[in-house]
Amino acid sequence: MSSHFQTIGIIGKHGVPSQDTPLKELIDYLIKQQIEVLLDQDSVDLDKDTIDGAQPVDRDTLCERCDLVFVVGGDGTLLGAARSMVDSGVPLLGINLGRLGFLADISPTDLTDNLNRILAGEYQEESRALLHARVIRDGAEIFESSAFNDVVVHTCYVARMIEFDTYISGQFMNTTRADGQIVATPTGSTAYALSGGGPIIHPSLNALVLVPVCPHTMSHRPIVVDADNHIEIVVSDNNRTASQVTCDGQADFGLQNGDRVLISKKAKQVRLIHPLHYNYYGILRAKLHWGKRL
Amino acid sequence: MSSHFQTIGIIGKHGVPSQDTPLKELIDYLIKQQIEVLLDQDSVDLDKDTIDGAQPVDRDTLCERCDLVFVVGGDGTLLGAARSMVDSGVPLLGINLGRLGFLADISPTDLTDNLNRILAGEYQEESRALLHARVIRDGAEIFESSAFNDVVVHTCYVARMIEFDTYISGQFMNTTRADGQIVATPTGSTAYALSGGGPIIHPSLNALVLVPVCPHTMSHRPIVVDADNHIEIVVSDNNRTASQVTCDGQADFGLQNGDRVLISKKAKQVRLIHPLHYNYYGILRAKLHWGKRL
Amino acid sequence: MSSHFQTIGIIGKHGVPSQDTPLKELIDYLIKQQIEVLLDQDSVDLDKDTIDGAQPVDRDTLCERCDLVFVVGGDGTLLGAARSMVDSGVPLLGINLGRLGFLADISPTDLTDNLNRILAGEYQEESRALLHARVIRDGAEIFESSAFNDVVVHTCYVARMIEFDTYISGQFMNTTRADGQIVATPTGSTAYALSGGGPIIHPSLNALVLVPVCPHTMSHRPIVVDADNHIEIVVSDNNRTASQVTCDGQADFGLQNGDRVLISKKAKQVRLIHPLHYNYYGILRAKLHWGKRL
Amino acid sequence: MSSHFQTIGIIGKHGVPSQDTPLKELIDYLIKQQIEVLLDQDSVDLDKDTIDGAQPVDRDTLCERCDLVFVVGGDGTLLGAARSMVDSGVPLLGINLGRLGFLADISPTDLTDNLNRILAGEYQEESRALLHARVIRDGAEIFESSAFNDVVVHTCYVARMIEFDTYISGQFMNTTRADGQIVATPTGSTAYALSGGGPIIHPSLNALVLVPVCPHTMSHRPIVVDADNHIEIVVSDNNRTASQVTCDGQADFGLQNGDRVLISKKAKQVRLIHPLHYNYYGILRAKLHWGKRL
Repeated sequence: MSSHFQTIGIIGKHGVPSQDTPLKELIDYLIKQQIEVLLDQDSVDLDKDTIDGAQPVDRDTLCERCDLVFVVGGDGTLLGAARSMVDSGVPLLGINLGRLGFLADISPTDLTDNLNRILAGEYQEESRALLHARVIRDGAEIFESSAFNDVVVHTCYVARMIEFDTYISGQFMNTTRADGQIVATPTGSTAYALSGGGPIIHPSLNALVLVPVCPHTMSHRPIVVDADNHIEIVVSDNNRTASQVTCDGQADFGLQNGDRVLISKKAKQVRLIHPLHYNYYGILRAKLHWGKRL
Repeated sequence: MSSHFQTIGIIGKHGVPSQDTPLKELIDYLIKQQIEVLLDQDSVDLDKDTIDGAQPVDRDTLCERCDLVFVVGGDGTLLGAARSMVDSGVPLLGINLGRLGFLADISPTDLTDNLNRILAGEYQEESRALLHARVIRDGAEIFESSAFNDVVVHTCYVARMIEFDTYISGQFMNTTRADGQIVATPTGSTAYALSGGGPIIHPSLNALVLVPVCPHTMSHRPIVVDADNHIEIVVSDNNRTASQVTCDGQADFGLQNGDRVLISKKAKQVRLIHPLHYNYYGILRAKLHWGKRL
Repeated sequence: MSSHFQTIGIIGKHGVPSQDTPLKELIDYLIKQQIEVLLDQDSVDLDKDTIDGAQPVDRDTLCERCDLVFVVGGDGTLLGAARSMVDSGVPLLGINLGRLGFLADISPTDLTDNLNRILAGEYQEESRALLHARVIRDGAEIFESSAFNDVVVHTCYVARMIEFDTYISGQFMNTTRADGQIVATPTGSTAYALSGGGPIIHPSLNALVLVPVCPHTMSHRPIVVDADNHIEIVVSDNNRTASQVTCDGQADFGLQNGDRVLISKKAKQVRLIHPLHYNYYGILRAKLHWGKRL
Repeated sequence: MSSHFQTIGIIGKHGVPSQDTPLKELIDYLIKQQIEVLLDQDSVDLDKDTIDGAQPVDRDTLCERCDLVFVVGGDGTLLGAARSMVDSGVPLLGINLGRLGFLADISPTDLTDNLNRILAGEYQEESRALLHARVIRDGAEIFESSAFNDVVVHTCYVARMIEFDTYISGQFMNTTRADGQIVATPTGSTAYALSGGGPIIHPSLNALVLVPVCPHTMSHRPIVVDADNHIEIVVSDNNRTASQVTCDGQADFGLQNGDRVLISKKAKQVRLIHPLHYNYYGILRAKLHWGKRL
């Protein structure tokens, strides 16, 4: 039976030798299915003999030519892949290297069975929102980045709070003195925002959550708003502590007092492929150990 | 200038003599504007001379004949009014008796000015979701109620937890051992759910939040889901502590092990009228004392 | 070798048939060691043949005649045993029926080995504080109880808060509107108080923690004070919701507005016996699943 | 009447011109009482005419010669003064510049009346614990500092957690993956530790609280232990994110993987002088806005 997908790309976890064997098995499997296999040359570093039949390409080529991209690694690997590929519209499928992820939800142990069915067209597809963050200084945009989990404006020095104002679609919300402010997607609601005391948000909900980190004023609480809002965080002029904006805990940019950080939902969403038996609440139960009693 | 509204009803706070003067002033004001005034006979208990020109009616008549209903009291008064009037489609306007409410957002001090403008058609209208809760025992519905803030399934004895299973639109979410589970609308997110550690949810978001109360398992967290989901909470068979369902902290019903509590969004939403200067974040700042520093 | 203890009592978990086999094995073991065995007649309900050589007695006799009492069950069983035996000074040893407890820390799987060493005098002993709660109405004491975990003053109706004033050794602390107030010992800090958001308190610390349950005012926080303080909680006169005091989630008493609940540390502490390898942090790690990553 | 104190020092808030008038008034007042006034030359920067009769000295001289030191500024000013003067045994009195502090509890508005009584010997004195932090690398101490509020081991990059092991007096407590770990005195329990979700600890309690900041594992909780314990935090070898130790949010030191941070109570406590009407719970109520209702 011919595959539902003709050309499949593979993105790995940069600099992790332990992934070589699973990657090789995956490549062999796909080639046997007569699928064209493209390898992300920056993250899949196998010698030539190993990848016989698969072709190393750059990320742009991956975006152009693939029907589907397998992302092998942890949730962090998939965050980066989603940011770089969201505009291409190519769907992503997350395969973990042994530890179940919120995003990398297919485990190596039952890989072949899952892939057989997915390649036969038996899968679920869902769309997930990403954020776009921009920093405006003196009227000019000086930084921009995508984020799949969260955009965090924060002090450079834990325990030395910063002050900032938050606006929701032009309406002033509040002034906060805190270690920082997290603006998270539903996907990010189970990442850093959860550690900061935020709620879990189901990925199908078109919402963002703002979670203050270690707020000085005790009545600050996480707030959930429609994802079509434009969020603006303005670093107050009186801060004596340096601050920063961080996207997905992976890309940083230093802020100055008076800088405006604009955050909105990206127009394009990332397409995630899951096995038919995928269940969001099942992942939550497994990851949050919900069965475990004190 | 003739009023935007021809017939206005007034609902008061049952058994509170201190409201008599503001109620009388309000009635006089409306009659001067040549508006027909109907009084909710259960909650407005003024002697006949006082209400000269206004007519006491039952709640059904209020629903049928009014273009607008003023609810005078606190947020609790408006909760009850909304539950009883939501199906009529008549808009509500909340007037507090001195303490700003989330819902009763017009204060007596600037009442006339606000009313002049509202009667002239200068106002904001918003729709807010209500919940409908039903209890199913042995296949039959044995209780049903509306809720504007929240439906809470809870132990009858604080500090003695109950166990229950929660399903979201047929998908099993988890088993919880806790004092209870709050299912709140965005309106209710600033009420009991907030005390229980839930997030604030902007009223324009079509979402519900489930907040476990004093959960025994430490990894339980509030979860926000699309309001079009059907929530089901099943009281476990092994509970030795009695449990109950409570709507808006006002209507109770005793539960038995095995009872299923079904909660979904009501088809009709309540219409709330606000002055043009109304601002949700402004109410939050005032109520949560967000300007106050430690 | 003769045992360090001559007469050992056994308290079980009332009405739990599954404990019969472990109880019988325990009795046999002790009799083989030529120890006199007394059985708590209210909680150990075995037929006569089974307990051949062991003598059913009432709780008072247990207090008078034993050198040591084994409490077989869960933490709840040990709470009750501690309250009834604390004044006797007889040390307690908690044996669980399969699920590790904070107090019932000896598991059936390695019971014999642990007991051999304990009977040989190789054990740790620690003292744990209990609370004494009294209710004063119109100047007269109308209820009193001991508590090992906590004394909780709380609403009879979850989601309908009560108001109360708290005094610490005569100093007014605050007025709280909440579902309730927990006053917990270090032992209780890992029970209901933990679900309510309180900190863990090491059992060696002479401290109490006050944890408001679902407080309406968002700046209320748990507070830890010296255990030699006298705590007083006064139910406000304006409550329209009934309230209650509950000790260890096991003994209740209905409160009226104006009632004063006085809570102080009992003069006597309960003596707990642990194996030499017992480690409080090890119990915490096991019970709180501290090794488990998201 | 002669003063209870012969020589009084004054420490100000470095580089804050707005304090000049209150400082001058304070100096004049003290000189009129025929008290010898010594000025901390690093923080009190007044011109010579202004301080006629008062003598600028270095911090060591302040420690040696004063019976009492007035610290004028905010809580931050008093933190620094306490760290530098704790070993001298000279008592401190905190005067705020308009905003009530937890430590700077005397307000300028009623200064003279308070000082009259304090100089007449009518005051309360309390002792507060400080911490001593040391960093050990490869067996050698490479940093040490005092802290009045807290010692925080934390990531240099908010939202990128670090891993560390915590030991309490040699007993392994747990491995934590978090933004950081706060070790706070009772004094510090109302500072950063409170923002991080820790409990309030009464200053008379000989206790420390450990508060994980944004822990990745959801069952981590603040833990309160006896202050005579020696706390050790070991930065794990596998961290790829830089970390740091910060004392009172004022003194930093960069950490490397494998570094051990040892934290224990200083042998000497700082002596704080308060007016007779000082009341810790009153300060809490004022600072935490406990009277304010939603």
